[in-house]
Amino acid sequence: MIIIGERINATRKPIADALAERNPEVIASETRKQDAAGADFIDVNAASNPAQEAELLSWAVGVVQQNTALPLCIDSADPEALRGALELVEADRVMINSVTLEEGRPEAVLPLAAEYGAHLVALTMDESGLPKTTEERVRIAARLIEAAEAAGVPKERLYVDPCVQPVGTNQDQGIAVVGAVRRIMRDFPGVHTTCGLSNIGFGLPRRHLLNRTFLGALIVAGLDSAIIDPTEPGITDVVLAAEALAGRDEFCMDYIRAMR
Amino acid sequence: MIIIGERINATRKPIADALAERNPEVIASETRKQDAAGADFIDVNAASNPAQEAELLSWAVGVVQQNTALPLCIDSADPEALRGALELVEADRVMINSVTLEEGRPEAVLPLAAEYGAHLVALTMDESGLPKTTEERVRIAARLIEAAEAAGVPKERLYVDPCVQPVGTNQDQGIAVVGAVRRIMRDFPGVHTTCGLSNIGFGLPRRHLLNRTFLGALIVAGLDSAIIDPTEPGITDVVLAAEALAGRDEFCMDYIRAMR
Repeated sequence: MIIIGERINATRKPIADALAERNPEVIASETRKQDAAGADFIDVNAASNPAQEAELLSWAVGVVQQNTALPLCIDSADPEALRGALELVEADRVMINSVTLEEGRPEAVLPLAAEYGAHLVALTMDESGLPKTTEERVRIAARLIEAAEAAGVPKERLYVDPCVQPVGTNQDQGIAVVGAVRRIMRDFPGVHTTCGLSNIGFGLPRRHLLNRTFLGALIVAGLDSAIIDPTEPGITDVVLAAEALAGRDEFCMDYIRAMR
Repeated sequence: MIIIGERINATRKPIADALAERNPEVIASETRKQDAAGADFIDVNAASNPAQEAELLSWAVGVVQQNTALPLCIDSADPEALRGALELVEADRVMINSVTLEEGRPEAVLPLAAEYGAHLVALTMDESGLPKTTEERVRIAARLIEAAEAAGVPKERLYVDPCVQPVGTNQDQGIAVVGAVRRIMRDFPGVHTTCGLSNIGFGLPRRHLLNRTFLGALIVAGLDSAIIDPTEPGITDVVLAAEALAGRDEFCMDYIRAMR
């Protein structure tokens, strides 16, 4: 399971404040906490202020790299900000978050991913907006994989994200996403799937319970990566349990080692 | 979700002792605890001593009925013990646990289920023993459904149990069972699926975590009943969360009510 730690994101107030003040303490502490909690990549999003995003993202990437040897997941919709951050990367791996099929996005992001040999989160969105059904998600995934391979990004470096949407608003969305993960993992061997989990419980009480339950179901359906807060109570235990249940932990040794 | 409370089972030492001593206290207390925890049926198994099973089962059924208005799930492999207990049932519903396709079983149990209008747990086992693959489970389920309907037990009263086996021994078993639940619910509309959950973690640490994670994945795959200990920490919370995630809780109202 490839865990992308989501805590360094400018939509969170403490991170926006740290970026505005160029205060490295919060960024450093969030980096170390996620590293200790089992993250495989540290997501870095500095999109609090479009005019300054490139500069802030590069600054944050520097702070994160001073505090972990983990690879980064550079999270921006701005190709120039992405390029600037990619230039600073020290680890031998890096991820870009994200490409979509919206107009202009593949042309802007896929060449960067190819040039830097980056892993790439690919959201199943196109011009018509967020997908509603399993079918739409699988269809857009197929087009994303085709476009990525044509641009020199092999599907083994692609993390298809089926765009989790709140089940409180549309009760079909949980099943639609689980179905999409199952179909994508079956139909496109080698590709990864990931998702920004926490949207699922938007507006509902006890969101951690929904996150844990949904993540377990997704892993059993085939999900092999997730964009989560690895410090959330019980979440990495669920990852270990679900991987054992999914038959992806030989003799359940990782589970047994972690739980004993 | 139809929860069958599993705590009154003679394989548990306190229950075997209570049966041996005809001590109603433990049986009464386990009945009330499971009723309060949200059980829909109370399973009653008195198979500690084959020579006395019919007598003990009828005694236990009496004690349980004095302590709950919930319907019972009469759990025995002995047709005469089953008939004796069914004769005592006061509620307007009852379940029998269980029939299989092993030689002689359908002929012994299906007529009883038809005669008493009982719901019926149907294990996907035949002469060749426990099933290993999803395919085998679905094939046996089809034969069970056909035999039940031929005997006058409609599939709406059938609870197909795909025989959960320890994932610590065979890492394929979790996925095989989830796949069977998904296929059975899709291919045989109207039938129920259930399972004796707790076998999944046999021999592994933190079995409650495995139970919770597996149950969530099964519900999202379509499972609409489970044979569980409803007093186990967090298990009914997972049922509510998973039903919301599965789109089976309109506007998530049951979840919201329970969690607020």
